[in-house]
Amino acid sequence: MNKLKRNERIGALMNILTDNPNKIFTYNYFNDKFDAAKSTISEDIVIIKKLVEKLQLGYIETLSGVSGGVRYLPALNNSQILKLLDKMCKDISMGNRVIAGGFIYMIDLLYSPEWIYNIGKIFYSVFKDKEIDYIITVETKGIPLALMTAKIFNKPLIIIRKDSKITEGPTVSINYVSGSTKKIQTMSLARKALKEGSKVLVIDDFMRAGGTIKGIYDMMHEFDAKVVGTGILVSTEIPENKVVDDYVSLLKLKNINEITKSVEIAVNDDMFLK
Amino acid sequence: MNKLKRNERIGALMNILTDNPNKIFTYNYFNDKFDAAKSTISEDIVIIKKLVEKLQLGYIETLSGVSGGVRYLPALNNSQILKLLDKMCKDISMGNRVIAGGFIYMIDLLYSPEWIYNIGKIFYSVFKDKEIDYIITVETKGIPLALMTAKIFNKPLIIIRKDSKITEGPTVSINYVSGSTKKIQTMSLARKALKEGSKVLVIDDFMRAGGTIKGIYDMMHEFDAKVVGTGILVSTEIPENKVVDDYVSLLKLKNINEITKSVEIAVNDDMFLK
Repeated sequence: MNKLKRNERIGALMNILTDNPNKIFTYNYFNDKFDAAKSTISEDIVIIKKLVEKLQLGYIETLSGVSGGVRYLPALNNSQILKLLDKMCKDISMGNRVIAGGFIYMIDLLYSPEWIYNIGKIFYSVFKDKEIDYIITVETKGIPLALMTAKIFNKPLIIIRKDSKITEGPTVSINYVSGSTKKIQTMSLARKALKEGSKVLVIDDFMRAGGTIKGIYDMMHEFDAKVVGTGILVSTEIPENKVVDDYVSLLKLKNINEITKSVEIAVNDDMFLK
Repeated sequence: MNKLKRNERIGALMNILTDNPNKIFTYNYFNDKFDAAKSTISEDIVIIKKLVEKLQLGYIETLSGVSGGVRYLPALNNSQILKLLDKMCKDISMGNRVIAGGFIYMIDLLYSPEWIYNIGKIFYSVFKDKEIDYIITVETKGIPLALMTAKIFNKPLIIIRKDSKITEGPTVSINYVSGSTKKIQTMSLARKALKEGSKVLVIDDFMRAGGTIKGIYDMMHEFDAKVVGTGILVSTEIPENKVVDDYVSLLKLKNINEITKSVEIAVNDDMFLK
């Protein structure tokens, strides 16, 4: 391969960094890949670092140490987050989404890669200062957004199953009470799914009373794991008192009117205070 | 914002294109964003197009039409695919993965964002010439890799549920026979999950006899949808005759030895003939 020009190297570096958020690449890796001197790569990185900040694409972090390294942190600022959340509220209130029983049909949004990739970036921006080993969720609807969050954090995902007939070796099962229906349910997780003493970020799509999230906390207790944060896409305004209290909800569901088929939902401004 | 220099524009364009594979951006969008003439942006895109091909990062497609557009297709070539699959075989055969009943513990791999992002790129490379409206899977373990495939294709994901107690409005349920256990099971999908006449790509993590995949085909028949491809991460060598025949499996599981706890798995070379 012929040596690359500066603008080509910058394009290539940006491709690699953007495709692998939060992954540390050593300068040596780039020196070898582009057959360029370390000083040349360092200059490229300085240009990219300034560019990423100027365009508000997040941050480039350079790490010192034996060989040195660089990684891309795609954090959004509050005004970018607010703009995305405003758009999400519009998406949720529009269309005929109210279904019998006072539920909202959101599958098309929760399974849209672009929509949930943005949510992953928002959760990353909210929890980026926490030390996190795993992103954890419970099946099924929250999986896509938990995975996108894991992708941005570059950390493994853990999915707690509601089914105990699973072929994942020895499992730990716990019972929990769904806060809104008061029904007893079971969740299971493979013994080897996470190491003892891990720090986890809990992510889910929806929270009414918080019984399921409480169940995840109980499960984490069994694994001697520490919950360092809880991110919920939509929480309901009622009941006001949830069985869990330390969570960040991006959107607040105020009302579902089954007669007019309308949904009242708003950005949870409190999240910017955390 | 001050006008960007060429190498900054190239970095910024690469960031946007890499972050949004298969999404079409108009030249006007970039003109406005970077306050640059259309001819300038066109020259930038020419540089990026050549660079992406030179570094084998896929392709940049420029589309003509009223305003014109550009998109990034992160297709891998066969030698890149083979290298990734070889590494995956090593990951699967290493470690103590054999669990009672002749199953392999693969959760840590299937839920690792980096691992499955690569699988998404491989499935994209295999099926990129098909016209696809949705990526479809059945819960639970295949969801992450189906979602990453959906992210690369920039198409919505559909998850078929095994649970009929779902709050997604009217559903269609079908019974299917798990090919290996011969047990009758149920899968359900919300009526409004996909439009009639859609073209779908089926993605799953594992296939033994193919009963579950056959179930998905039956479900798609109920929605008058056409299955244009089926991608499986691991299929077993035995039984040789599956209940479905037209699928692409990336890896072939030859043997699980429960006594020596060893796994024999290989790249399915046939896939390169398709």
